Amino acid sequence: MLTKTPHLFDDATKVTAGDSRWQGHTSPDYWAFVGPFGGCTAATILRALIDHPERAGDPTTMTVNYCAPVAEGAFDLDLRLVKANRSSQHWCVEMTQGNGEVATLATAVFAERRPSWSHSGASYPGAKPFAETLPYTKISVPWVKQYDFRFVEGEPKYGSTSSSAPPETYSKLWIGDSVPRKIDFLSLLAMSDAFFARIFHAKRDFVPFGTVSLTTYFHVSAEDLAAEGIARVLGVADAKIFHKSYGDQNGELWSPNGRLLATTTQIAYFKA
Amino acid sequence: MLTKTPHLFDDATKVTAGDSRWQGHTSPDYWAFVGPFGGCTAATILRALIDHPERAGDPTTMTVNYCAPVAEGAFDLDLRLVKANRSSQHWCVEMTQGNGEVATLATAVFAERRPSWSHSGASYPGAKPFAETLPYTKISVPWVKQYDFRFVEGEPKYGSTSSSAPPETYSKLWIGDSVPRKIDFLSLLAMSDAFFARIFHAKRDFVPFGTVSLTTYFHVSAEDLAAEGIARVLGVADAKIFHKSYGDQNGELWSPNGRLLATTTQIAYFKA
Repeated sequence: MLTKTPHLFDDATKVTAGDSRWQGHTSPDYWAFVGPFGGCTAATILRALIDHPERAGDPTTMTVNYCAPVAEGAFDLDLRLVKANRSSQHWCVEMTQGNGEVATLATAVFAERRPSWSHSGASYPGAKPFAETLPYTKISVPWVKQYDFRFVEGEPKYGSTSSSAPPETYSKLWIGDSVPRKIDFLSLLAMSDAFFARIFHAKRDFVPFGTVSLTTYFHVSAEDLAAEGIARVLGVADAKIFHKSYGDQNGELWSPNGRLLATTTQIAYFKA
Repeated sequence: MLTKTPHLFDDATKVTAGDSRWQGHTSPDYWAFVGPFGGCTAATILRALIDHPERAGDPTTMTVNYCAPVAEGAFDLDLRLVKANRSSQHWCVEMTQGNGEVATLATAVFAERRPSWSHSGASYPGAKPFAETLPYTKISVPWVKQYDFRFVEGEPKYGSTSSSAPPETYSKLWIGDSVPRKIDFLSLLAMSDAFFARIFHAKRDFVPFGTVSLTTYFHVSAEDLAAEGIARVLGVADAKIFHKSYGDQNGELWSPNGRLLATTTQIAYFKA
């Protein structure tokens, strides 16, 4: 561990074990506009799954559907092992709050990552070193302050008056925790939702926005990830389309050692 | 409709309504190696959701987790509206067979596609016309014969002895039903799983393979899609990584009119 005292991220994603029903609590440190940072919610669900006594194998894919705003305070996580095979597990998780309505619905697959033929077709995007890249400090939303974002390309130009310029949606940036923390599956999942909304980039402005569904694939085993021993990733993100109030995002998270750790995609609502 | 008699695809994805529990049946016409073609299973689930009396809005995203092989015969679909908001619905579907174990777990979001700012950042890949491209007829698996695949680039070279050549995973191809059928959300979803396994392309051979999770985003409303009035799509697919028995695939489905209809991603098990 890079820090000895409990990290804010670990506090924010803390869970209390139950039988099938676990408990968590939103964190003011990772608060976004109208609720908790979705990446933090996703990581909390993943933490509960990883900590579950029946869990076997490494997280391979996770899809999180954000059904309704999460209110400040406590929530329940109902964890259900839907199907287990010899080498994989299928989970379904419902997050509910006081009213009993589902706020977040997630599915995850855990699998034993057996040795196989290996090939990376995607190329490491490359970037100037983290130390030579300026931190992005223009947004004071709580969750954003928990991260050290350093844009290599596609820094957002909010409020730019050059509205006639073509929309730019590509970004390449270093992402680390503001207080350095070794990258694990939890932080990787959170970071896969940490790219600023592509619609903000495209419109060069903040507009009403909410992620509807996030899917992240992990391309390393727990052992691989631990061996990387890194505290930041190089992230790239882009969008393909915005149409009738919904837009997409696709992204990659790379180890600075040049290894593809995770790919991610999401569909989001926007008003513009 | 382009055909007047019932289309095999509509037979294969037929469902019988229940209250929350619907019924379906696997189709020999869409059989794959050890079970039904996953795209047909996904489309059957989507059909049940679209036909559900409580459904409102258009499908926006669907994630299908293939938990276990589906046996030949009948299956039940347990459809649950997990959360409904003013303009969107979150559904969860479990497919079970006789033994009561879950074979397929799916989540879907339906939404009212309100007018908005619109922008397509991705470029139409372009291709020589369908009529000038040769059908791919080298595979006689039942489900493959239901489609008219015409490779523009990246035709598979199974059994090729040039094993020293670098793995190629990119494909561009026309995809239509062998008996032409107007493209709707059902066929679009099925086609998003109709690319041949990227590992087959990479290894130039058939190896044990199974899709674990498929996520498809729809970028058109029902009205948009009907207005296209098309019977085939131009599909592109690629893979980023194969590692420790799992590999990814990402793809796009385009209208021949140059409109991005759907994006898709999947993670799959392989043995190689």
